[in-house]
Parts: sequence; structure tokens; C-alpha cells
Amino acid sequence: MKGFVDPWGSIDIKDYSNLFKEFGLEKFSDNYKLDYYLFRRNLIVAHRDFGSIFQRIKKKKPFIQVTGIASSGRLHLGHKVDVDLFLFFKRFSRSYFAVSDIDAYVSRENIKTMDEAKGYAVRNVADLLALGLNKKDIYVQSNKERRYYEFAFEISKRITRNTLESIYGPLDLGKVSANLLQYADILHPQLREFNGRMPSLTCIGLEQDPHAKAVRDIARRTGMELPSFLYFMHQSGLQKGMKMSSSEPDTAIFLDDNEKQVTRKIDKTFTGGRDTVEEQKRLGGRPGICKVFEIYKFHHPDDKFVEETRKRCESGKLLCGEDKGICKRFLIKMLKGHQKISKKFLKTAEKIVFG
Amino acid sequence: MKGFVDPWGSIDIKDYSNLFKEFGLEKFSDNYKLDYYLFRRNLIVAHRDFGSIFQRIKKKKPFIQVTGIASSGRLHLGHKVDVDLFLFFKRFSRSYFAVSDIDAYVSRENIKTMDEAKGYAVRNVADLLALGLNKKDIYVQSNKERRYYEFAFEISKRITRNTLESIYGPLDLGKVSANLLQYADILHPQLREFNGRMPSLTCIGLEQDPHAKAVRDIARRTGMELPSFLYFMHQSGLQKGMKMSSSEPDTAIFLDDNEKQVTRKIDKTFTGGRDTVEEQKRLGGRPGICKVFEIYKFHHPDDKFVEETRKRCESGKLLCGEDKGICKRFLIKMLKGHQKISKKFLKTAEKIVFG
Repeated sequence: MKGFVDPWGSIDIKDYSNLFKEFGLEKFSDNYKLDYYLFRRNLIVAHRDFGSIFQRIKKKKPFIQVTGIASSGRLHLGHKVDVDLFLFFKRFSRSYFAVSDIDAYVSRENIKTMDEAKGYAVRNVADLLALGLNKKDIYVQSNKERRYYEFAFEISKRITRNTLESIYGPLDLGKVSANLLQYADILHPQLREFNGRMPSLTCIGLEQDPHAKAVRDIARRTGMELPSFLYFMHQSGLQKGMKMSSSEPDTAIFLDDNEKQVTRKIDKTFTGGRDTVEEQKRLGGRPGICKVFEIYKFHHPDDKFVEETRKRCESGKLLCGEDKGICKRFLIKMLKGHQKISKKFLKTAEKIVFG
Repeated sequence: MKGFVDPWGSIDIKDYSNLFKEFGLEKFSDNYKLDYYLFRRNLIVAHRDFGSIFQRIKKKKPFIQVTGIASSGRLHLGHKVDVDLFLFFKRFSRSYFAVSDIDAYVSRENIKTMDEAKGYAVRNVADLLALGLNKKDIYVQSNKERRYYEFAFEISKRITRNTLESIYGPLDLGKVSANLLQYADILHPQLREFNGRMPSLTCIGLEQDPHAKAVRDIARRTGMELPSFLYFMHQSGLQKGMKMSSSEPDTAIFLDDNEKQVTRKIDKTFTGGRDTVEEQKRLGGRPGICKVFEIYKFHHPDDKFVEETRKRCESGKLLCGEDKGICKRFLIKMLKGHQKISKKFLKTAEKIVFG
């Protein structure tokens, strides 16, 4: 039986290079490198048709950017990468950030009511605003223009059941309709009521690629530009393997975690340090597998700090205990600042969600 | 293999009584008879839970009524029965008449674009207004409150693929999403944002019963009142068998047919007259199988005229030629009056469709 990538699961992609053949996507090339930390730190790993977007940036021509998150829980550091990429490309593009509350409800077992999904949406939107998005960047699926819903239903005539099942395997009806909404999220800016036909970019994790395949198939049948995709590496869980996951709180640092929670989680975080202090001083640490170092790589704004920390770790000068202390202070400061701003945005967020 | 009733096909139900066992519905009983021509003339043939609605009428308690037509073509006399029943129950209920443009587009091969479905919606709405509906009775699927779309998607989490396939057989994705909208049409008035939980009535043809079964299953899982259904007989096609069908224009009298078209179609209409005039005078005509008589039965406002025509036909006094002349004059007068009013409502109809 053919294996399917499950965009709703939390898979552990260890060897990204192996996946290119299976996925049919292109390895990210240095030709397309842009001056942003996620590119400089090699966290962008693959793409589909990014060349056309790259050309548009160089020629200062407009394009569409769409990103989305399902409001199925609190936001964590893993989501911050989606937001950072969105903010980076926003300066060049007509950008849409979807907070997917209907999707969250219909496709996830743990979300029992639409009210619950909307409750998360309010908190997520407040976080997004605190991270630097503007009101007009964001929309919530349940509070969108009518044309959007009409279009989501229209799409059901543009994709066959066979195509869908060849991409995802058998799907329950909730996931089918979550998919229709997701395709509408990515394609609706190309409708005549929005921007009209135009190249578009969506930045996702590799496990979301089934959606990319499906939506490009629909674009082809609808006479729209085929959307381009950039694939970033997911920040992994705080213990070995996995990606940060809302459903397993100890794998992730949430944007609303307090000092105590951060301290407890970093204390338990896998570092890849040696068995003894003596050994670590002699052999050096292993930042390549260290989850603390990964936090810096994904979130520390200062390239120099990241590089120096790597060197100090590899040379055996920086021990895990000290490093965890540095990491805790960095995170707690960042999160406290964020939480203060996010709280102020709750009222605005409610307006965006409930209209 | 189990046979499925196809709510999108044009089936020929000859022996209605045979179907009750298969459908699991109740034969319409004289206990529930109301003083309206469709009841008096035995054109209401079956029901599900009509008793609770009947009690509400007697006790002057409110209930919800929902009816809908797909805007996949021009309206014909067959549709007028839906409208007449709607107008009759409207006086007792909180009534919603859905003009299903998204449904028409996604579920029908012959509708190639949403613009086409909306074009038909405008003409259909003008006809509905001319037939006596008010602006506020009608909504168009593509121009409805957001909560309605959200709810249509929510429903996808409330019905399993297995349930759907056990009712309809395998469905393409367009029909799946048309169904979700149809369920939302029938159930959304029970949402707290509309009327809250309340008994509801929908009047349909027997071949639409699969939708009734599915929507009652969803209501059960959603904690809503199970909708009641009344089933009316379809006016059959102008030739033998069939129901009036938009896709076969010669089987139907359309509300916008002109004098010439009506004349041509009635000339070709099956009457069940005898082979010779002599024979007809001797044996009498057969109104039970006569499509001209069926037109009176479904549309002539005067019970006495209908009864007398039956008698004159059966006695051999009324010959088919004379009868067709009477029928043509009746239809042409009715349609001319209708068309004059419908034309005046086109602007209002455009507003209802495009907002």
C-alpha cells in the first residue's frame, strides 16, 4: 500500500533530502537566497516554483502571499516561524494571514465546538498582532467575505474524489471540507473580486505538501496562476525528535507560557551534551542535535550570538547548565514582552473574530 | 446491489404506494387534512412526523418552514407547487425560501459557472416574487449570513462518509458540498442566531427523500428538532410518464413560455383520449391519465371547474380538442399575467441575488 503524508499528524521528518523524490519538490537553491535569518541559517529547505516569486521581488512586481494557522490551540514557538516568514514577504506582496477556525473545528477531534475554535482564534489573533501583523493582514475563516465561502464550495466541482484520495488517502467529510477551505484560502486572492490572476506564495512545513499538490491541481483546472510554495524546517520538540505540538504541551514553548513553565520545560529539554562534564570539556557539545541551540537558531535575532554560542559549545567552553540559563533568560524576556503587548490586543482580536 | 434513489435524476415514480416500505415514510392521512387545494385534491401523498406540525397549526404555535429550488434553469409549472405549498404554510410559520445557486452550480453538469447559476437565480427570484412571495421570504445561497456557511461546514463533522454513502451511494465532491448546503438550508433556522431549536417543515417530492433521511440524522447528532417533511406528487411531463424537467423543455410549461410555445406544447400533450371521436363519445375520456386534466388538478384555482371538467370528460361530452383549447386559454392568461408582474420584479430580484 502506498504511504500518504498526513498533514494533520505530527510526523518526524529526519532526513529531509530523502523526501524530495517522493514529494516531487525542488531543493532550495542558493540562487534564491534572500537576506533574512531563516535563509541565512538554512531553515528554508525546499520549494515549488519559487523562481517566479524571486524574479517578482527582484523586479519589484506584486505577488500574493497567503499563510494560515488553524486555531486549534495556543500558539507556540513553532508558529513564530510562519509569522516571521509572513512578515518578511509582506513588504513585497499583497498578503493574507488566515486564522482557520472552521478548519480547526471540522478537521480536529480535540476541538468540540465552533465556539472553542473561535476562542482560540481570539487569542491567536492577539498573538499575531503582538508579533507585528496589522489588523488588515489577518482574516478569520468564519468572518470572511461571502465570495470566499462561495468559492470554497465552487472548488468542490474542480477536484475529483479520485485526485483527492490519490493525494491524501481516504478522508472523512470534516477533512474534505477543511481542505476546500484551505484551497480557498490560498486561491481566493486570485479571484477577480480580490486581485485577479497573480502569482502567489505560501510558506509551509514539508508535511503540508499534500495541500500544495492539490491546490496546484485546482489552480490548473480553474485557469489561475499555480501557487508557489516555500518549505521551512519545523522547529522540533523540546525532547528528541517530533515537531512542537499543541497537543503535547511539554514539547513546545507556548507564547503564553510563564516563567515557571519555561524554566521547567528548558530544564527537561534535550541538549545532546556529553555524559560527564569532564567529557564535555574534552569533546565539546553537539549543537547540531541540541534543542536549546535550535531555539537560538530559530528565534534569536542576532546571527553573531548564534555563531558564537555554537563555537563555545563545540569547543567545550559552554556547558549545558550555563547554556540553559542563558536560554531561559532569553525566552522569558522575549515572552514577557510579547505577553504584555498581546494582552493589549485582545479587544482588537475579538473584533477581528466576531466582526 | 442496493438501489439508491437519485435526488438529482428525473425518475418516474408510477406506483407511489409501493415506495412507502422502501422509503420508511408514512402515507398521508386524512386526519391531517388541511383546507387547501393540494390537500383536497390528494396531491399530498406522504409525510415524516407531520403530526407535530399539524398540532402546532391547531394550537397556533410557531414552527419553521424551509423550501428551496436549485437555480439551474427557468421555473416551470412543476415548481409552482413548491411555491403554493410554501405560501400556504407561510401564514402559520417562520418561513425561508432558499434559491440554491451554489448547489445548482456544484451539483449540475449543465451549469458551467456561478455566474450562470446567479443569472437563473435572478429570474427565479423575480418569478417567486410574482407568485406572491415577499422579499424577506427569499434568500439566495451565495448571498446569505456568514453563520450559514460556517454551519454548512460544521455539518461535515456531523455526518460520516459511511452514512452519506449508505443513503446516496457514491457521491462526487460537488454533490457532497451541495448536500452540506442543503442540510444547512433546512437546519440553520434552528441555530441560536436565527430562531433556536424549533420544529420545522419542508415540503418536497418523494425523490428528494434521501435528503430528508440525511438531514434528520444530522439533526439528531446536533441536538436539533428532527425536521418534518410533507411529500407532494410531482406534476408529470406533458407526454407520458416523467416529471416536468428543465433539461427537457418539451416536457414542461415554463413560467416564461409565450403564447406560441404554450400552444405548440399543449397540441403535443398526451390526453388519454380514445382512438376515434365516436369511441370517445361512447366510452368517455380518461382524466386519470390525461396530462391536460393534470394541469387543471395542479393549477386551476376552482375546485368546481376541475370536478365538472372531469365529469364532462368521463361522460364523453368534452372532447380532447375542445379541452386543449380551454387549457391553452387558461394557461396563456395565467402566464401573461404572471410574466407582466415578474418583469417588474427583476430589479428587486437582482438586489436579492447580488446584495
